[in-house]
Amino acid sequence: MSTLTAYKEHLQEIGKLQSSLALLHWDQRTYLPKKGHDSRAEVIGKLSKMVFELAICDELGRYLKELEGQDDLSLEDRASVRVVGKAYRRHKAIPPDFYERFAIARSRSETAWEHAKATSGFKHFQPHLEEMIDFSRRFADYYGYEKNPYDALLEEYEPGMTTSELNALNEPLRSKLVPFIKRLLGKGKRPQTGFLKRTFPIDRQRELSLRVLKAMGYDFAAGRLDTTVHPFTITTGPGDVRVTTRFTENDLLSGLFSSMHEGGHALYDQGIAPKLRWSGLDEGASYGIHESQSRMWENMVGRSLSFWTFFQPILAEVFPELAKTPIEAFYQAANVVEPSLIRVEADEVTYNLHIMLRFELEEKLINGRISVADLPHLWQEAMERTLGVVPEDDAHGVLQDVHWSAGMFGYFPSYMLGNLYSAQIFAQVKKEIPELNEHIAHGELANLLGWLREKVHRFGKIYEPKELMTLITGEEPDPSYFMRYITNKYSQLYQL
Amino acid sequence: MSTLTAYKEHLQEIGKLQSSLALLHWDQRTYLPKKGHDSRAEVIGKLSKMVFELAICDELGRYLKELEGQDDLSLEDRASVRVVGKAYRRHKAIPPDFYERFAIARSRSETAWEHAKATSGFKHFQPHLEEMIDFSRRFADYYGYEKNPYDALLEEYEPGMTTSELNALNEPLRSKLVPFIKRLLGKGKRPQTGFLKRTFPIDRQRELSLRVLKAMGYDFAAGRLDTTVHPFTITTGPGDVRVTTRFTENDLLSGLFSSMHEGGHALYDQGIAPKLRWSGLDEGASYGIHESQSRMWENMVGRSLSFWTFFQPILAEVFPELAKTPIEAFYQAANVVEPSLIRVEADEVTYNLHIMLRFELEEKLINGRISVADLPHLWQEAMERTLGVVPEDDAHGVLQDVHWSAGMFGYFPSYMLGNLYSAQIFAQVKKEIPELNEHIAHGELANLLGWLREKVHRFGKIYEPKELMTLITGEEPDPSYFMRYITNKYSQLYQL
Repeated sequence: MSTLTAYKEHLQEIGKLQSSLALLHWDQRTYLPKKGHDSRAEVIGKLSKMVFELAICDELGRYLKELEGQDDLSLEDRASVRVVGKAYRRHKAIPPDFYERFAIARSRSETAWEHAKATSGFKHFQPHLEEMIDFSRRFADYYGYEKNPYDALLEEYEPGMTTSELNALNEPLRSKLVPFIKRLLGKGKRPQTGFLKRTFPIDRQRELSLRVLKAMGYDFAAGRLDTTVHPFTITTGPGDVRVTTRFTENDLLSGLFSSMHEGGHALYDQGIAPKLRWSGLDEGASYGIHESQSRMWENMVGRSLSFWTFFQPILAEVFPELAKTPIEAFYQAANVVEPSLIRVEADEVTYNLHIMLRFELEEKLINGRISVADLPHLWQEAMERTLGVVPEDDAHGVLQDVHWSAGMFGYFPSYMLGNLYSAQIFAQVKKEIPELNEHIAHGELANLLGWLREKVHRFGKIYEPKELMTLITGEEPDPSYFMRYITNKYSQLYQL
Repeated sequence: MSTLTAYKEHLQEIGKLQSSLALLHWDQRTYLPKKGHDSRAEVIGKLSKMVFELAICDELGRYLKELEGQDDLSLEDRASVRVVGKAYRRHKAIPPDFYERFAIARSRSETAWEHAKATSGFKHFQPHLEEMIDFSRRFADYYGYEKNPYDALLEEYEPGMTTSELNALNEPLRSKLVPFIKRLLGKGKRPQTGFLKRTFPIDRQRELSLRVLKAMGYDFAAGRLDTTVHPFTITTGPGDVRVTTRFTENDLLSGLFSSMHEGGHALYDQGIAPKLRWSGLDEGASYGIHESQSRMWENMVGRSLSFWTFFQPILAEVFPELAKTPIEAFYQAANVVEPSLIRVEADEVTYNLHIMLRFELEEKLINGRISVADLPHLWQEAMERTLGVVPEDDAHGVLQDVHWSAGMFGYFPSYMLGNLYSAQIFAQVKKEIPELNEHIAHGELANLLGWLREKVHRFGKIYEPKELMTLITGEEPDPSYFMRYITNKYSQLYQL
């Protein structure tokens, strides 16, 4: 057997275990009965350990060493060796007993966070957060970095991205976004939403989500829609990409946009070339690129006037009580801008400010420029400064997100990058398909999906995000696309 | 680490992979989207191979050898070593390449059977069945046996049972059953079922099944009910025992009894002592004992007058259109005896004759006393002789069951043993709880469940079936309990 074949078989083995793990996780968050959770955690722990052992085993190291020296590999194989090799070296850099201590501390930290959030008691969580930061710094040391330990953590979520590049994206964006929001809220005309203040039965909301996913081109023969507490998308293989969503009886749009958001993630995974299955490349290019797809369908498509032109009659079929509500009213109601305390409830204009705040704080925490004890205070100060609203307690402030409790430093920026990428990619789509708005207004979403499949989805993880963005749009990531999109859309909407 | 500890860790590893496999199978038969099946088959193949490798590895062999020599083991550990050791030796006896050839042939055979059944073309299936029989004979040779190769196959499903013991159960049963059925159908008064000829919406049937499972004591915090094509029960751990059922709009009782049947299986698994988890003992004592639990709840309980005394008002709540139908009418309609062509649709009186026919044919096939080519003809002859009905085509005859196509010779008898065991165990329950009928009539099913937990469920696979039956009832398996149960019940019902 050639080294390449042996290498691919090894990856298949990892891939099949990861497929099993994906199903175990999906079930855990949808259908697993209460008393099954303890055993499930043990089963997941066991399989995760098996995957980890296969991902750092010496055999794989030998394959990689040999293949990294070969210059006759195909584009895909070269990319696989790059991606798998990088992960191999990162995993190998961590002493197993260190990782085990981290896993135990993380589990304690997550429990402490849950309790702290429920009681809004930051003090209870503080020592755990300090421990997570300490672990993360040491991870960064093990991984290695040039200038900033935060870069080593960022690499996990956005390969090739650095702190200084992130700052270069942030600064111009913030300098325009903050005054624009001020103008919008001061002089703009706020949309009416009163007509949505009613009860929408869950089964009909579900029907609506099924119809919008179908219209988007989501393949139900290769997926399904279920409900959960925190919506997610998960893939057990190219023929099984599952969406979950959440419905609230008195909030029609929240469930609909959640489905479109997850649908955007799912279309990406359904579009990855089948030949990349179990090759280490059968996932999105990065967390940020993945988020660009979910945000594009949720916001650029779902919150556009064209979309509501197409979708209003469908909505009217499912909810006849809204049949007389004009298209424009839905468009307006879907685009209310409101500085708020909670990230996951933020509109697309203020959302990035929530992320910048988190990014700046976590980058300083990792570099020891601020202390955990000062965090609640610094959080409030930053909220006041950027969004003009201040949480009354830590549960609605620094304790709202799970990420830090699980040691996921470097994750937050991908949410913002997703927004920036989505605007830049969407501008390119509109350049290449000038009649896109008309297509959307007629419910012909297949043109958009076809374009995304061809230019983004099929490549999986073959290219790094920056490389991919340049291939797609001819330019490196540039925040001005997002700012232009926001300014144009909301100036018109708010009659500035 | 002591050998015992190392041995237990090894079993835990197997158990955790089997838990994953159970979920992969459950999902495959409930929620997996169509295009996910190819990948899923590969994932299941991979994990099955891993389990198999762990089950025959030399390390395990060494543990077993050492532990088999120790005389200070607990009851559970001794049983675990017995059960795991037996499986180890059986697995080891099969050359890996032989097993692989069997797996490939079986997959082809199952496909050929599906096609043959759809077209009622036995000829198409014949060479595959011949191949499956040939493989099974060779399995028997590898496993080893004293008198009859069929014994070696039976061992897989009913440990400790032999062909001659089976015959000793069959003969007296048949000699009484056949004339009794003749009398019943000739002179008895057939119950009326016309009042059930209507449409019963699936969602309300589901509601009814949920209520009956709850009444039986099935723990929904450690399980769930879903629908599928061929109902089954599956366990991923002591806290997760799932039931599936099937509803047909124009058949109220079929879905209800399917749920009770699977519920009976599930109560068994939910009742296995948690300490047996992942020990090789965390399943039923045998296929026959497992079936005794499903048949007891389905037939002894579900088809009794006491049960309908309790259940008629519940049914009337869910289906108000049946509120005025008297208890006795349901009792009668649930107990129609009708010789029929299809095993899975057979009533409890004629059911065993379907099994005897299959057992006798498959035992002769394995011993080469009949040929596959003669099978359709022999099937028809046996149906005529025992049940008095003859299929018009092979799809409703010899091709109706999947078992033979998958090489599962020795499986069928467990269905009959389940019936015999259930009657014998139920007679013992009634002896020890004389007021059982009144309990059931009041919906107090917890007494019955408590008794079964104490005497049957908690032991899992600690005892072999014969040993367990003797512990429970003081006697070895005896078909006269079943015959008495049938004679008493149906003489009264059919006014003989």
